[in-house]
Amino acid sequence: MTAGQSALSETPFDDKFHEECGVFGVFGNPEAGKLVALGLHALQHRGQEAAGIVSYDGTQFNAERHAGLVGDVFGEKNPHVENLRGSQALGHVRYSTTGGSLTRNIQPMYADVAGGAIAIAHNGNLTNAGTLHAELVRAGAIFQSTSDTETIIHLIARSRFNPIAERLIDALKRVEGAYSLVAMTAKKLIGVRDPWGVRPLVLGKLGNAFILSSETCALDIIGAEFVRDIEPGELVVITKDGLQSYRPFASQPRRFCIFEYVYFARPDSMVEGRNVYDARKSIGEELAREAPAPGADMVVPVPDSGVPAALGYASASGLPFELGIIRNHYVGRTFIEPSDQIRHLGVRLKHNPNRAKLKGKSVVLVDDSIVRGTTSKKIVEMVRDAGAAEVHFRIASPPTTSSCFYGVDTPNAGELLAHRMKEVEQMREYIEADSLAFVSMNGLYRAVGEVGRNDRNPQFCDACFSGEYPIELTDVSGGRSGRQLSLLAEVA
Amino acid sequence: MTAGQSALSETPFDDKFHEECGVFGVFGNPEAGKLVALGLHALQHRGQEAAGIVSYDGTQFNAERHAGLVGDVFGEKNPHVENLRGSQALGHVRYSTTGGSLTRNIQPMYADVAGGAIAIAHNGNLTNAGTLHAELVRAGAIFQSTSDTETIIHLIARSRFNPIAERLIDALKRVEGAYSLVAMTAKKLIGVRDPWGVRPLVLGKLGNAFILSSETCALDIIGAEFVRDIEPGELVVITKDGLQSYRPFASQPRRFCIFEYVYFARPDSMVEGRNVYDARKSIGEELAREAPAPGADMVVPVPDSGVPAALGYASASGLPFELGIIRNHYVGRTFIEPSDQIRHLGVRLKHNPNRAKLKGKSVVLVDDSIVRGTTSKKIVEMVRDAGAAEVHFRIASPPTTSSCFYGVDTPNAGELLAHRMKEVEQMREYIEADSLAFVSMNGLYRAVGEVGRNDRNPQFCDACFSGEYPIELTDVSGGRSGRQLSLLAEVA
Amino acid sequence: MTAGQSALSETPFDDKFHEECGVFGVFGNPEAGKLVALGLHALQHRGQEAAGIVSYDGTQFNAERHAGLVGDVFGEKNPHVENLRGSQALGHVRYSTTGGSLTRNIQPMYADVAGGAIAIAHNGNLTNAGTLHAELVRAGAIFQSTSDTETIIHLIARSRFNPIAERLIDALKRVEGAYSLVAMTAKKLIGVRDPWGVRPLVLGKLGNAFILSSETCALDIIGAEFVRDIEPGELVVITKDGLQSYRPFASQPRRFCIFEYVYFARPDSMVEGRNVYDARKSIGEELAREAPAPGADMVVPVPDSGVPAALGYASASGLPFELGIIRNHYVGRTFIEPSDQIRHLGVRLKHNPNRAKLKGKSVVLVDDSIVRGTTSKKIVEMVRDAGAAEVHFRIASPPTTSSCFYGVDTPNAGELLAHRMKEVEQMREYIEADSLAFVSMNGLYRAVGEVGRNDRNPQFCDACFSGEYPIELTDVSGGRSGRQLSLLAEVA
Amino acid sequence: MTAGQSALSETPFDDKFHEECGVFGVFGNPEAGKLVALGLHALQHRGQEAAGIVSYDGTQFNAERHAGLVGDVFGEKNPHVENLRGSQALGHVRYSTTGGSLTRNIQPMYADVAGGAIAIAHNGNLTNAGTLHAELVRAGAIFQSTSDTETIIHLIARSRFNPIAERLIDALKRVEGAYSLVAMTAKKLIGVRDPWGVRPLVLGKLGNAFILSSETCALDIIGAEFVRDIEPGELVVITKDGLQSYRPFASQPRRFCIFEYVYFARPDSMVEGRNVYDARKSIGEELAREAPAPGADMVVPVPDSGVPAALGYASASGLPFELGIIRNHYVGRTFIEPSDQIRHLGVRLKHNPNRAKLKGKSVVLVDDSIVRGTTSKKIVEMVRDAGAAEVHFRIASPPTTSSCFYGVDTPNAGELLAHRMKEVEQMREYIEADSLAFVSMNGLYRAVGEVGRNDRNPQFCDACFSGEYPIELTDVSGGRSGRQLSLLAEVA
Repeated sequence: MTAGQSALSETPFDDKFHEECGVFGVFGNPEAGKLVALGLHALQHRGQEAAGIVSYDGTQFNAERHAGLVGDVFGEKNPHVENLRGSQALGHVRYSTTGGSLTRNIQPMYADVAGGAIAIAHNGNLTNAGTLHAELVRAGAIFQSTSDTETIIHLIARSRFNPIAERLIDALKRVEGAYSLVAMTAKKLIGVRDPWGVRPLVLGKLGNAFILSSETCALDIIGAEFVRDIEPGELVVITKDGLQSYRPFASQPRRFCIFEYVYFARPDSMVEGRNVYDARKSIGEELAREAPAPGADMVVPVPDSGVPAALGYASASGLPFELGIIRNHYVGRTFIEPSDQIRHLGVRLKHNPNRAKLKGKSVVLVDDSIVRGTTSKKIVEMVRDAGAAEVHFRIASPPTTSSCFYGVDTPNAGELLAHRMKEVEQMREYIEADSLAFVSMNGLYRAVGEVGRNDRNPQFCDACFSGEYPIELTDVSGGRSGRQLSLLAEVA
Repeated sequence: MTAGQSALSETPFDDKFHEECGVFGVFGNPEAGKLVALGLHALQHRGQEAAGIVSYDGTQFNAERHAGLVGDVFGEKNPHVENLRGSQALGHVRYSTTGGSLTRNIQPMYADVAGGAIAIAHNGNLTNAGTLHAELVRAGAIFQSTSDTETIIHLIARSRFNPIAERLIDALKRVEGAYSLVAMTAKKLIGVRDPWGVRPLVLGKLGNAFILSSETCALDIIGAEFVRDIEPGELVVITKDGLQSYRPFASQPRRFCIFEYVYFARPDSMVEGRNVYDARKSIGEELAREAPAPGADMVVPVPDSGVPAALGYASASGLPFELGIIRNHYVGRTFIEPSDQIRHLGVRLKHNPNRAKLKGKSVVLVDDSIVRGTTSKKIVEMVRDAGAAEVHFRIASPPTTSSCFYGVDTPNAGELLAHRMKEVEQMREYIEADSLAFVSMNGLYRAVGEVGRNDRNPQFCDACFSGEYPIELTDVSGGRSGRQLSLLAEVA
Repeated sequence: MTAGQSALSETPFDDKFHEECGVFGVFGNPEAGKLVALGLHALQHRGQEAAGIVSYDGTQFNAERHAGLVGDVFGEKNPHVENLRGSQALGHVRYSTTGGSLTRNIQPMYADVAGGAIAIAHNGNLTNAGTLHAELVRAGAIFQSTSDTETIIHLIARSRFNPIAERLIDALKRVEGAYSLVAMTAKKLIGVRDPWGVRPLVLGKLGNAFILSSETCALDIIGAEFVRDIEPGELVVITKDGLQSYRPFASQPRRFCIFEYVYFARPDSMVEGRNVYDARKSIGEELAREAPAPGADMVVPVPDSGVPAALGYASASGLPFELGIIRNHYVGRTFIEPSDQIRHLGVRLKHNPNRAKLKGKSVVLVDDSIVRGTTSKKIVEMVRDAGAAEVHFRIASPPTTSSCFYGVDTPNAGELLAHRMKEVEQMREYIEADSLAFVSMNGLYRAVGEVGRNDRNPQFCDACFSGEYPIELTDVSGGRSGRQLSLLAEVA
Repeated sequence: MTAGQSALSETPFDDKFHEECGVFGVFGNPEAGKLVALGLHALQHRGQEAAGIVSYDGTQFNAERHAGLVGDVFGEKNPHVENLRGSQALGHVRYSTTGGSLTRNIQPMYADVAGGAIAIAHNGNLTNAGTLHAELVRAGAIFQSTSDTETIIHLIARSRFNPIAERLIDALKRVEGAYSLVAMTAKKLIGVRDPWGVRPLVLGKLGNAFILSSETCALDIIGAEFVRDIEPGELVVITKDGLQSYRPFASQPRRFCIFEYVYFARPDSMVEGRNVYDARKSIGEELAREAPAPGADMVVPVPDSGVPAALGYASASGLPFELGIIRNHYVGRTFIEPSDQIRHLGVRLKHNPNRAKLKGKSVVLVDDSIVRGTTSKKIVEMVRDAGAAEVHFRIASPPTTSSCFYGVDTPNAGELLAHRMKEVEQMREYIEADSLAFVSMNGLYRAVGEVGRNDRNPQFCDACFSGEYPIELTDVSGGRSGRQLSLLAEVA
């Protein structure tokens, strides 16, 4: 099959499968749809591109899936939420790279299969989705999206098991990768985490209703109580008779994503038993001990993600914490640049140096991570242009050397600064800081409560820092070529 | 599976499968997409709800399918047509009942299947689509629409033949019903008519380019030459090497839809060798001979569809032809009626009696057909209210007693006036005309060039008048229950 | 003031003041807004670009003014009409050339002035609007549109009379030109025709409610009774106590626009005591007598405007009437033309020759008028290309030699075929017909019930045919330079 | 004139004249329009409801004014900025209460007046606008908005001076109130501050181009140099020949708005010679000294506005600074609340307590001000619900007792907590904090660099805290009844 035969121009092939997402499900509250809308709002940081909710009202499934922020799609001014009748509902927020931002890819996905109807939303990324996709197309399956979720749905449709929960287990046994998945049928809400437990999923209760959520901050917004984390490899089935727990998969070593602590989760969430804000502050403290900046005048965070670590650094170092960079909260907008270009406009749209504070000072600048390095370079230059005498750059994570294939959107390894440059000194030269330091791997592990990294059997998935991938990358090793677009195309 | 489990609220089950449509394809012109847009504009009377075009540009397929009139969707102010690059393109206009008016149902449909990609547009209605649909879902197929076309696409995806044209034939051998279908692959444009030839399809040429169109009026608009009708049961494959004709199906008696002459086709089209305007005028002449109106002052058409027959009636009867009813051309709009209701507002929005002409006159009112009878009743009353002394209603087709299952949108039989009332006198009383007459079945056949109807083997499909259905109605006899909605739902 | 200083790009100067329009007002029905919406739908042929309604509900004025067809703006799917509460309402449909199609120009216009609030809608064109506009700007008035109506409103705002009806009269005494105007205050509905009575305005009743309308066809749609024409120079004031008639202006000779009969009014309207369809048919009969076409086979109208005259021609000549050209009713759409141009695409989008009828025939083609001649030339060619042996072109009006300055949108004189070419033979050569004839001026006058034209004191305004302008053209003689755009600009 | 006669339903009377706004003008850069778009983005915090830019390209004025954020209206995806050709441009961001959010009120406003064209944008509020408005309507002026700016424009239109700059001065001499205004004609950019200098306006340079901006942070984003503040009562005229400064008004005591330091300006701006972030931090330090919280465990800001003062408080008190409340940055969205109400949903949508930090702790909560008190009450309760043992609320401004009439949007005095309750203890009981304290007036003055407040002649306008209004409130004392809506209404 040539490329020409397989690609509609309206649905360019999406070569980025990594998806950041958030999921939220409610079972047993008469206003389940409205509660899911609020939960998704609290999970908005996990996906800003689109939001979808499917509810079941005892008679039919109701679905609303739209591009945009949760508040725009399901907020007061929008009647969509009124359609989401019923006491059980399932929602999803989605981040997506350009090609995949089509409405057809918005979750939850839904299908009628021979055993009944099922809706599915998931956070994570399957590492053999392309291989399965190719196999299914050869067997006559017609795909309408490039999403992992649809691959799972086709596996369910073709499963010979019954009832639908058995079909789901049958399908999941064939997939590889990282996922926290919530499914809903007419009578059940089902939550599953992959056997390694890479992505988070928590259980809550609001009165008699059960909640499944990516993070605890979404329980807080609706006033629900946090019950426990869903365990790696656990599948819970919630019905009107209560919750049943299953362990359908072969056991695997636990590998929670350490990057959730570094950047991804919201600071007020409890993740795997630990407060994220505390973890970040502790990383800053470790960093201050490992990489002090003698003679510096103040600690300045790159807002907002660098703030907790900068507070930790300031506290451990005794240096004052100052808002030396002010963030414009109306971010996400881009402008046409004048042809007589403005120096570092991209950074300036979001950040402005607080000149009065920076002038003549030696500054410790704290950020959560360095990805491509281009933004870091511009921020250092912007701070220096504003008059800072010295800029000591401190990073609250180890060097990011490898791409994530388990659900966090990272560039190809070749674009990562720490992949291109192996030495910290080389990176320092590139970003033109007076000094540069990353927290050590052991420092990071200490900050999240370990005595250090167990190198033979690491306690977390830290593939982005170590390059050690705990789950097989079937598509990557197989050239991933099977994941060519195959669509019964639908125009939005 | 209960209905409750199977229906998303956004996609209510569509109990009307009858679809009126038009198709237009071009192979071998560098501006195929623009030509298809023009062709569809000329076929607009065959479907006003949505329009779609798929082109292939040598590298990829490009698709634009939208609700609305062709001129709104593909007109000058709209950039969609610019995306339709390539020298081959396929288009479709669609009429649809409420439930099925979703964008997901807009044709042409497109799929990547194992042997390559294929786009399909068709005019007609399959009579075993529901049965096939149920069977496919049981085998794990995931449907995203309720359209016949998607059933054909799933059959193609699961066919074990190669190449794609063979897969199409394999699929069509399994379907029953009436269809004129145009398909497009990366290298071919394929046209097929069902073995009975119920729906029209013509072949044209514009320079070296081949054209397939529902009617000749769409050849005229682009200045193409009419070559010939595609024959019943014929499949033509157009490639860069020219046109090949095949006869893959068992032969069947020819049964072209006589209602195309009565109402559906455009008067300036040549249909199966006969000019539609002439046919309609001849029906009016037959009607004047069969059902004269002695003492009448004038012949008045119900515009616009009654005009040709009224001209024929006037000419054969010697009565003057007068525009006693004026049509508001800004039709298709509805208004909120004042609570102090306006008499027959629905009819008045479209038609206004020309009082000055009607006052005190005995009028022969000519219309093409009577369906439910409610509109006819109101028009008679409106003409009488405007001062007409007598209203003699003449209908240019036999009584419509039966629903169409072959692609013309007609109400259920129970709603048809001629099904509810067997006697013409009873109908006359209902519509409150001074006299009422329909052309006879033989009169109709004479008007289209036959000596009369061959009752043992009718020369046309006249099921709507005779109740004799030439093609088996599998879904109807099987309760059609298989055709419950089964969708991997897509939000528009 | 240079042009540069005076023109916002969003409001290009509109050099076409000629406006075709329709007005409709209701006083004394609790659903006045909905009735006005229906009335405007019936007047849609007088202006397709925008529609507006203002109502008064006893407490406040409610306004909805939008670009688009009446049915789109005020139809069932649109909640706008729900806002138009109250028992009195005033509406307007507007045709406008490109530059002036801004929402700011949509009528009715509304202003709070010192004596109260007033809404105004008018049909016609003021011939000293530019002069008044310039004078008002010099006195500090800030204009937000280029419309005549706003000029009247500024004159009202600055009038020293009271009450508001006196202010309106004071303002109208300063304007020159043709107008039929309806105004509404909190307590009154006011109708006025200019002293010459160029544009139509009729009075109707629906129960106790009074109606003012441009044409009678809009009375018919709501079932209202036609009472009488408003007289030239008459001003009627309708209040809850009934209707009062005034004659505030100096008397002038009556000069109703004869072009309303030729083309502009709807055939089912009664205009100044005469049925428009009858008038057009009579013109065709006169034309048949004045300009027969011996040896012709049939009469073919250019649809739809040429149909009544063609019926008259056919009837008077004894030739058969045939629909040799079929009109595509989905007009008003334009398409991107393929670069390999299609012959006469512009005409083909709207008209298709009915080849089967035309082939080898000598045809009398009947149209209502020739303006620039370019379309006529293409239609003649299209008919000939379709196989007609001879084309005899007959025009149901005299040659259009002059622009209208009284409210009908005509091109500048220099663009008119009959202005560029004085001889009929020269025009015939240009449009390439076998023969060409126009009805004579006396023939036209006979068709509308006169014995002929009274050349010393013509019974109608026929300036477009005769060049004799009954009302002074102040702006034209003054160079109209005052009418430069002067706006307190508002972005739509 | 009754209310009924004067209010169109589409333009409800706006009883809130207070407008927060930002202005930005560029003269002498070929891409002035794009620079203004960027400047407005940096001023977005001064008005989020609408944005407008007018440019002059040497031939014509180009205007784009739309509801929405700057990045949505003028960002990369939007072609509006491409229309803003020319080397001089003027922009405005606007905050507005519900009634006044109509597009017609979006600035800059523009008018052609007898001497030429002028565009005006202003930040502030006129205190005699209603009185002037009524007077102008009596003299025949027709208003299309309720904005102060249009009042100024009518005064300019009616001025008898020349050239246009003289007309502007003539108009401004008649207005009272607070304003920083930028005007643009075909040849000039003009900046003015009212004689008291209530609102800010700064001068910058980018190469040879002059910039006028509400704040310095908008100079930073385009890389422009800060030159100086425009002085109170100063009018600067910028032409191609440079800048001329005038002092056309009677001198008044300087009264810069102290609330700009407390809340309104961006922390990285230099305002009247002082850094805003430093001022806020100093307020926090003063507050720590004036109102310590012995025994407290930590200082927690109400984010984001309380952060700088909380840092000052923490630094002066020696207590740790902790992010005990996490802000959801996707604010401004509201949701339909479940009928089984969620406790304090309104606050939760924006803020979530970081339970892990707050549990069992005695917390000093710092916010910038208390307005109605309802939000403060909910935040205290939320922090307590999250487990805080004690909540000591500290406010970085004196009690807000009075409304602003000079351009900051504050509720009516009757709604202000400190107006309803005179005693701090009473307020503490209402918000249910363990202790409550406000910074003193002298503390506030010290924090902005004074030795204390000069009560006889205060150095700033602090009317919101003191009730002492430096500029006469003509409309308020006159009942402001003249400011009834008077519009030549325009439908958006």
